[in-house]
Amino acid sequence: MNQDYIKPDAWSIIEEGFDKGRVKSSESLFSIGNGAMGQRANFEEQYSGPSFQGSYIGGVYYPDKTKVGWWKNGYPEYFAKVLNAPNWIGINVFVDGETLDLNTCREVRNFRRELNMKEGYLARSFEAVLPNGIEVEVKALRFLSIEDDELGAIRFEITPISTDAEIRFEPYLDGSITNTDANWEERFWETLEVKTKSEKGFVVSKTLKTGFHVGTYMQSEIQLEGKEVSQKPEIKTGEDSVSFSYSVAVQKGKTTAIIKYAGYVTDMNHKESELIQAASGVLDKAVDKGFEKLKEDQKKAWAKIWEMADITIDGDVMAQQGIRFNIFQLNQTYLGKDARLNIGPKGFTGEKYGGSTYWDTEAYCIPFYMATKDQQVARNLLTYRYNHLEKAKENASKLGFSNGAALYPMVTMNGEESHNEWEITFEEIHRNGAMVFAIYNYVRFTGDFDYIPEKGLEVMIAIARFWHQRANFSKEKNKYVILGVTGPNEYENNVHNNWYTNYIGKWCIEYCLEMIDKVKDGFEDDYHRIMGLTSLNEGEMAEWKEVAEEMYFPYSEEYGVFLQQDGFLDKEIIPVAELDKTQRPINQKWSWDRILRSCYIKQADVLQGFYFFEDHFSKEELEKHFDFYEPLTVHESSLSPCVHSIQAALLGRMKQAYEFYLRTSRLDLDDYNKEVEQGCHITSMAGTWMSIVEGFGGMRIEDDKLSFNLQIPQQWNAYSFKINFRDRILKINVTNEKSEFSLEGEASLEIIVNGKNVELHPNNTVSV
Amino acid sequence: MNQDYIKPDAWSIIEEGFDKGRVKSSESLFSIGNGAMGQRANFEEQYSGPSFQGSYIGGVYYPDKTKVGWWKNGYPEYFAKVLNAPNWIGINVFVDGETLDLNTCREVRNFRRELNMKEGYLARSFEAVLPNGIEVEVKALRFLSIEDDELGAIRFEITPISTDAEIRFEPYLDGSITNTDANWEERFWETLEVKTKSEKGFVVSKTLKTGFHVGTYMQSEIQLEGKEVSQKPEIKTGEDSVSFSYSVAVQKGKTTAIIKYAGYVTDMNHKESELIQAASGVLDKAVDKGFEKLKEDQKKAWAKIWEMADITIDGDVMAQQGIRFNIFQLNQTYLGKDARLNIGPKGFTGEKYGGSTYWDTEAYCIPFYMATKDQQVARNLLTYRYNHLEKAKENASKLGFSNGAALYPMVTMNGEESHNEWEITFEEIHRNGAMVFAIYNYVRFTGDFDYIPEKGLEVMIAIARFWHQRANFSKEKNKYVILGVTGPNEYENNVHNNWYTNYIGKWCIEYCLEMIDKVKDGFEDDYHRIMGLTSLNEGEMAEWKEVAEEMYFPYSEEYGVFLQQDGFLDKEIIPVAELDKTQRPINQKWSWDRILRSCYIKQADVLQGFYFFEDHFSKEELEKHFDFYEPLTVHESSLSPCVHSIQAALLGRMKQAYEFYLRTSRLDLDDYNKEVEQGCHITSMAGTWMSIVEGFGGMRIEDDKLSFNLQIPQQWNAYSFKINFRDRILKINVTNEKSEFSLEGEASLEIIVNGKNVELHPNNTVSV
Repeated sequence: MNQDYIKPDAWSIIEEGFDKGRVKSSESLFSIGNGAMGQRANFEEQYSGPSFQGSYIGGVYYPDKTKVGWWKNGYPEYFAKVLNAPNWIGINVFVDGETLDLNTCREVRNFRRELNMKEGYLARSFEAVLPNGIEVEVKALRFLSIEDDELGAIRFEITPISTDAEIRFEPYLDGSITNTDANWEERFWETLEVKTKSEKGFVVSKTLKTGFHVGTYMQSEIQLEGKEVSQKPEIKTGEDSVSFSYSVAVQKGKTTAIIKYAGYVTDMNHKESELIQAASGVLDKAVDKGFEKLKEDQKKAWAKIWEMADITIDGDVMAQQGIRFNIFQLNQTYLGKDARLNIGPKGFTGEKYGGSTYWDTEAYCIPFYMATKDQQVARNLLTYRYNHLEKAKENASKLGFSNGAALYPMVTMNGEESHNEWEITFEEIHRNGAMVFAIYNYVRFTGDFDYIPEKGLEVMIAIARFWHQRANFSKEKNKYVILGVTGPNEYENNVHNNWYTNYIGKWCIEYCLEMIDKVKDGFEDDYHRIMGLTSLNEGEMAEWKEVAEEMYFPYSEEYGVFLQQDGFLDKEIIPVAELDKTQRPINQKWSWDRILRSCYIKQADVLQGFYFFEDHFSKEELEKHFDFYEPLTVHESSLSPCVHSIQAALLGRMKQAYEFYLRTSRLDLDDYNKEVEQGCHITSMAGTWMSIVEGFGGMRIEDDKLSFNLQIPQQWNAYSFKINFRDRILKINVTNEKSEFSLEGEASLEIIVNGKNVELHPNNTVSV
Repeated sequence: MNQDYIKPDAWSIIEEGFDKGRVKSSESLFSIGNGAMGQRANFEEQYSGPSFQGSYIGGVYYPDKTKVGWWKNGYPEYFAKVLNAPNWIGINVFVDGETLDLNTCREVRNFRRELNMKEGYLARSFEAVLPNGIEVEVKALRFLSIEDDELGAIRFEITPISTDAEIRFEPYLDGSITNTDANWEERFWETLEVKTKSEKGFVVSKTLKTGFHVGTYMQSEIQLEGKEVSQKPEIKTGEDSVSFSYSVAVQKGKTTAIIKYAGYVTDMNHKESELIQAASGVLDKAVDKGFEKLKEDQKKAWAKIWEMADITIDGDVMAQQGIRFNIFQLNQTYLGKDARLNIGPKGFTGEKYGGSTYWDTEAYCIPFYMATKDQQVARNLLTYRYNHLEKAKENASKLGFSNGAALYPMVTMNGEESHNEWEITFEEIHRNGAMVFAIYNYVRFTGDFDYIPEKGLEVMIAIARFWHQRANFSKEKNKYVILGVTGPNEYENNVHNNWYTNYIGKWCIEYCLEMIDKVKDGFEDDYHRIMGLTSLNEGEMAEWKEVAEEMYFPYSEEYGVFLQQDGFLDKEIIPVAELDKTQRPINQKWSWDRILRSCYIKQADVLQGFYFFEDHFSKEELEKHFDFYEPLTVHESSLSPCVHSIQAALLGRMKQAYEFYLRTSRLDLDDYNKEVEQGCHITSMAGTWMSIVEGFGGMRIEDDKLSFNLQIPQQWNAYSFKINFRDRILKINVTNEKSEFSLEGEASLEIIVNGKNVELHPNNTVSV
């Protein structure tokens, strides 16, 4: 770990003491979001020290002009980037005319920041001595409403404690913002209108090129000792900004406060011409309710989320804090209400990684959302890709594929490719497999087979076509091979016959053929519609089948393992444990070619396949492959430890499973990779959830039933989690002595525990 | 071919008729240079149409900040770029106040441009009707002096032909120039001083970061009907520029002219503080001599170059023009006087490709310079790399190599790496082999063994160390392997056991060990100095030897050929001839991954090895490999056809050899690759020379003797060339009936012709 300033606490992330060097890290860790928008933990008042401003609106992006050293055919000319949006949180504060700025204060005492995950707010308090010598006490609290996801609310209290003072609040909106991650230092926003209407302020902006219209708005009220102070503010408008100035004479020891209601409305949800009207409506409702009531509603909304999604861990507060932080961030990022949105690898905590959607969603996030939310949420995630199918076909066609073959982009916002490293963009094609695996996984878990005739099969056919065209017959091997790929292990590029890629490619074809048969049998209308739409015929399917049946897999007789790719054994095989610690992490210490020719594995690759297709292999086979590959794995991807944790647990290696669990659950809190400043690793947080539920809990689906093989790390006294299985809510509580299962609702449910069938009845706890 | 406007002529490149669409192409083709500086064929007078300005000074570069999409460890932060330098050619011309600008003239008639290669000048003439209706006739001629390589001279004549007119000449210098190839649109130059002294003008500039000081200077004289007109010009100076304005009243049909002497002096050859003084000296000498005498000297200087370097072809004017253009451009680019300079792939004809020196110099250019110049010239080219040895060691060390191993940069100006594509920068390591091959080739040709103890051995040891460390032992193969490389065929990346790379790596070690023994025997002092310097011991050498002896080479029993790399036969093997023509060139039509997994070869790779090490293989082996690989080769590198031409000739396939020859010799004149606008392919021009001398002429070195196997393409009546072999000048003349050899000088020489010894006596022609 690289930082340890976060205080252990079961429900909150807490920082104590002011350290300018930690500001950017904390801005990431204390981010708030409500699935539709998000805000880094930037201060409301002016801060002149190093800071990384970030306000984000889900789905609002900008196609930045590609920057590469050397152009390769097939690169997208533009690609979608997450956008820093107009500033709605800003409140400049002046004490007897002196600007409150923690970077210039003579002293800052009792600085405390709390991200209250239970109730969903960010609070901050401190005492400061301003340059003019006046001492003040400050308490700020803000949240982004879950209930009204266009609204944010801030209460900023200040108490002069050394003398009477004139406090001036200047709440403002500012549309003149820039992206840190901009290829050409261009501005991405244009301000269309700055308007005020009594005490409401509006800035209407438009993203350049994409033309998203966003209305940023605010309204404030001033209080003295908790009572509203009526005051006509002084209004200032600039080209891109608007501010209101309120002045209050405050006696020593008394408290004045500003409540700021603010946020965004966009033309994704309103007419372009009605943004100001929509914003006024949100404001009127908010003012009407008042801050306290909004905060109470927020608490309730989060209670409802936690009711289903919480995992408790007894006896290990660090682990408890870690898993709750992960669950909290996932819910802040994506609540599943809107099929146009997805789960960005940085969520609303930073700009990095351009577009928002990676194969992370399909491979790591869907299980979490399936099990902790209504099944419509996971369906929305699948639909997101279904809606991008035509773009995926265009993408494949750009790369020379034909006949409606689809290649989903490596990174995307709107279905178009948003990445340009040839070895990844063009070659990390295994992502196409994850799209199909997610459908399979969804149907397996939810039993919602209808998704396949409705939407899934079209995606599967286009992807099967891709694999069929992408493989070629090797006369030398008398088998089909897949050349020039990058597997999940990105520390190998342009390899031949990556086992994982070949395996998932073969499986995609076979699963698609199986589903075509099923749809033909049970959904005749859909079958004819899809066959007509795709012009698929028996001859083509026969060709697919041949590719799948005759797919080549590199294998070592000597080690009895599938090889990650052709030629893997030509490498010098030295376990990571024997590698000098000064050489780690190798992605910071070694040149790229050295990494590539080494045997070191960034993240699960062959083992990722064993994770997805666990039921295709025996435990002995898994053990052999785990023992061969894990010692060569440096886990320099946030997505690596979780898969290994689950597999170690399955192999009964609980000590190792727990070690992997720790690495994943506190990755950001402890800043393992020295980069939390740039944002949190949101998608891998779902892997942490999997480590507990699928790893320690051993949850699987077997023949349409939930199955568990429960274990508990020796560091813990107990843990519990809930699963929403086909609208039945199951709670599992595990202690060192026993496992308890209780079922909500009315119907009974048969599950499998340690291989044996167990009948659960509602409101009746079963101990095993 | 993509253009055919160049008129056939044995000694000149000629364009007739003005076509704005051809301006940029012609600016490249009609470039002039003198080895120290060069100038694209931009017009002297203003031209407002599309144009690509370029003035270049050998050795003056700028380290541009790297631009990449995704950073990889090991990339250089800055890399050296060829620089567009201050404009010295400019002469604004006004006719009765109207600007002469071919883009705005009402009519342009009889436009003619001639690059006179025999005498080394560029001439241009035309008649134009200006917007004000006045008709003028213009004749401009310029050259860059070979004799005084800091000097350029221009004569610009104008004749009003429709009416009397006032002609104003404004010769100027302009330091406010930019690079087309600049990563961040920064300015690379700073102007330090603008000065005039009587009729001399000076602009002293400095390159930012590198701090090269350059004095650009001029002096002009005005003539009317060939007689000097004394006139005090009006002087204008700007921040970066200086101009002189001369006005002449000219009667209809009379001719006025301006002579402009101008050029560069740099702190590479003068003290920083004495640039103006140095420039004054050059000007005084030039003015003293006068334009006509300078032009006469230029003719003589070129006659001397041609005397040795010319190749005549009888009966095929297109081929004659092509080879002379190649020889002319090579001599314009590099004359071998200065070991700090080298041969850029675009010479002085464009900016593309950043730094100036590639492995092209060692692999393709050295034979030309060895055979047509004094051996010191080739020695200077080797010394260039010797002088960069420490930088090559630093480069290797950045990539994780130790113990004084060296990796020469892929592209360089000053010894530092100037390229950043991991698959090339880090992986195209075969370039290190070319460094050693060039030494071997030089010693084989010149017999100058002294170079090895003096300089070459240190380079060879550092390179042997690199290969030793770069190979690793494969238990699987029980051999040493070289993983993760890009061979000369850049249409494969990150391959394992590229045959060419493994072969030249093994050879480098073996040749180095052989040379260590030789130096130990004959140069004891050097031996001890070098052993001390490098701390090389027997143990290390034994390790090298093992790697060389146990090197792995991929081989196909089925085809009886070495494989380009591991797994080559997994590809779909479809000859280029069967590829749809709409798919060519594949580097413009296909995405990069598709190119990579295809079997298509950009340029000779296995065959490049057979070319370098022809004597290691039988003719039958060559034939087998040629028949296997050539049909898969798309020749999309300018460096490919020449090697194939030589090998086709060796195999007696003269028809094919001639086809390859045509592709290489008129590559730029006919603009095969649709890119001559950006500059000419200078280094591959040396390959054209090789196609004739080593291909048709079959010249080799056998046991310290020149050997020939002469053939002639059926399209030709005769061809001749000269070889400077160890200070003996040999002329070879080949016709359909016979080959004639004549020797200059005083001593006799034994050569081998068609396998038989032939004794040549001075001034006595032998026919075979």
